[in-house]
Amino acid sequence: MYDLVRVAVDAMGGDNAPVEIVKGAVEAVNADSRIQVYLVGQEDVVSEELKKYTYPAERLEVVSATEVIETGEPPVMAIRRKKDSSLVKAMNLVKEGTCDALVSAGSTGAILVGGQVIIGRIKGVDRAPLAPIIPTATGVALLIDCGANVDAKPLNLVQFAKMGSIYMEHVVGIKNPKVGILNIGVEEEKGNALVKETYPLLKECSDIHFVGNVEARDVPAGVADVIVCDAFAGNVLLKTMEGVSSVLIKKIKAGLMSSLVTKIGAVMIKPALKGVVKSFSTEEHGGAPMLGLNGLVVKTHGSSKAAEIRNSILQCIAFKEQNINDKIREHIVPEI
Amino acid sequence: MYDLVRVAVDAMGGDNAPVEIVKGAVEAVNADSRIQVYLVGQEDVVSEELKKYTYPAERLEVVSATEVIETGEPPVMAIRRKKDSSLVKAMNLVKEGTCDALVSAGSTGAILVGGQVIIGRIKGVDRAPLAPIIPTATGVALLIDCGANVDAKPLNLVQFAKMGSIYMEHVVGIKNPKVGILNIGVEEEKGNALVKETYPLLKECSDIHFVGNVEARDVPAGVADVIVCDAFAGNVLLKTMEGVSSVLIKKIKAGLMSSLVTKIGAVMIKPALKGVVKSFSTEEHGGAPMLGLNGLVVKTHGSSKAAEIRNSILQCIAFKEQNINDKIREHIVPEI
Repeated sequence: MYDLVRVAVDAMGGDNAPVEIVKGAVEAVNADSRIQVYLVGQEDVVSEELKKYTYPAERLEVVSATEVIETGEPPVMAIRRKKDSSLVKAMNLVKEGTCDALVSAGSTGAILVGGQVIIGRIKGVDRAPLAPIIPTATGVALLIDCGANVDAKPLNLVQFAKMGSIYMEHVVGIKNPKVGILNIGVEEEKGNALVKETYPLLKECSDIHFVGNVEARDVPAGVADVIVCDAFAGNVLLKTMEGVSSVLIKKIKAGLMSSLVTKIGAVMIKPALKGVVKSFSTEEHGGAPMLGLNGLVVKTHGSSKAAEIRNSILQCIAFKEQNINDKIREHIVPEI
Repeated sequence: MYDLVRVAVDAMGGDNAPVEIVKGAVEAVNADSRIQVYLVGQEDVVSEELKKYTYPAERLEVVSATEVIETGEPPVMAIRRKKDSSLVKAMNLVKEGTCDALVSAGSTGAILVGGQVIIGRIKGVDRAPLAPIIPTATGVALLIDCGANVDAKPLNLVQFAKMGSIYMEHVVGIKNPKVGILNIGVEEEKGNALVKETYPLLKECSDIHFVGNVEARDVPAGVADVIVCDAFAGNVLLKTMEGVSSVLIKKIKAGLMSSLVTKIGAVMIKPALKGVVKSFSTEEHGGAPMLGLNGLVVKTHGSSKAAEIRNSILQCIAFKEQNINDKIREHIVPEI
C-alpha cells in the first residue's frame, strides 16, 4: 500500500464547506484507487455528511479538528493560535509525512502563511509561489506567482520560472513549456527594474524554454505556458481576467434579454454560449499549486464545488508519481 | 477669435494615417466651431486627402513636416533626431503656445518622451502619467498611470490621484469622483511596498474623494472612477482587459457558428451582441490624456479611426475651457 497518494483535505475551508468538500473527497477516492484521503474537520459534521455516500472506507479517514479558520482572520495570528483548526492539522499531516499533499478551499492568506511556516520550503527555495492555472484560447497557462511575494527579487522569479516549468511539463503534461516573463512590451529593454534585472538571468537558464517578454494582452491568447511575474502583477492579471469575463458575460446576458427576437435567439445559442463561458472560467481548471514546499499544497477557489475539490485531489497523483519535488531540488541549487 | 481651442493633430501617426486622421480632423472642425486644427504632416499627402471634404478652411490649417516616426523606433532617438517629423513639429506647436493641445495616434513611447522633453511638465509635477479611459459596467474609469512611470514613487502616485480626479470631474463630468488605489486586496494593510506607503498619503489628501484599495476584479464593475497605480500594474490591467475581451468574443463567435441552430440564433442576437461588444471596447472611449504637461497631449489608439480622432480633438475643449492645468497647479504645490 506504500504507493498510495495520501491527501489531507481541509473539510472546513471555503464557502461550500463541508458539504461540497466531503462530496469532492468521496468522488476522488471513488475515481482513482491510488488516492487515500484524510478528511480533516469537525468529526460529527464530517461523519454525518459521509453517511450520504458509498466509498472504500479504508481509503477515506476522518481526522478530528475542532476549530475553523475564517476567511477574514489575520493569517499569521490564525495559524499561530488555532492549533486545532482543520487547516493547521491538515498541514501538520503533510509536515510529519503522513500525507503527501494538502487540498484546501480556505483562506488564501492562512494557506500561504501555513505553507511556509508549518510545512516549510524545500532547501534552496527562497519563496514559495502560488500558481493558478488560467484558461487561454489554446488551453491553459500557469501564472506564477499570484501569492504573497509582492516585492519579489530577480532570483525569486528565476526559481518561479524553473518550478513552473517543471509543474507544467510533468503534472499538466505540456512538453517543453514556453516560459515568458510578464512585461509591458515585448522588446528586451522594456520593463520595471525587477523585470529588467530578471530577463538576462532567465535568458541564461539552460533548463527552461524561455521565450522572452510576454504582454498581458497576449496571455489570454496563449502565447506562453508559464507566465512568470511578481505576485502583485500576477494578482492584477488574474483578477482582471475574472472581472472582465464576469462583466462581459453579464452584459451579453442583458443584451440577449433586450427584445423578443433576441430572447428567442438566446434560447437557440444558450448551450453553445454556456460551453464558451465554462471553458474560459478561471474556476474550471482545478486548484492552484503552491510550489517549493516539502509537500504539495493545492489552494482551490473559496467557492469550490465538489468537482474542483475532486480534480485538485486527483492532480496530486501526478505530482507524487512524477517526483516533482525531487525535480525541483535538482534544478534549484541552494546558494552556499 | 482668441478663445478658439487650437489642436495640433499628428496626421502621420497610427495604423490608419493619414486617411482616418484627416477625416477625424475634418469631422471635429465641422462638429464644433470652437475647434481650430493644425494638421501636421507631409503636405502633399495631407492636402490630397483634404480635397475629399468640405470644411471651414480658416479653422483647419496644414503644417508641413517631412518626416514620420515609426512605431518600432527607439523613442528617445526618434524625438531627438527627427526634428522635422509630424510628432515633433506638432509638439513644438504646443510648446511655443500656438496650440493648446496635441492629438496623436503615433508611437506611445515617442509621445511619452516628447511630452516630457519637448512640451515639458507643469512646475511641481514630477512625472507625467498617461491615463486611458476604460469602459466599466456602469460607465467609464480613468486608469492612471499606464505610461512610462514603471518604478513610480508614492509621491508620484499622489500626484496622479489629484490630476486624475480633476480630469474626471471637469473633463469627463463625474462629480466628486471616487479615487481608489489598485491593490491585491481591500484591507488597508495589503499590498506591495509602493502601495503600502502611498495609501496613508492618499488618505490624508483633503482634495480627493479617496475610497481606499481597489481590487483588479472590481475595476471592470466600476467600483471607482479613478484607479491609481504605477504604469506597470496599469499596463497589465489595461492589456489584460483587451486580451480577455478579444479572446472571449472570438470564442463566442466560434460557438455561435457551431451548428445550424446556433447560426440562426446568432442572426437574431447579432445587433444586441454587437452593442455589448462596442460598449465594452477600450477603443470606444476616446484617447488617453497625458496629464501634468504644459498643454494637453491626447494619445489615441494606434488603430484609431476617424471617430476616435474626432472625439479626442473634441475632448480638448473641456480641457481648455475648464482650465484643467490651472486646477492642477493649484492642487500640486511644488516642494521647495
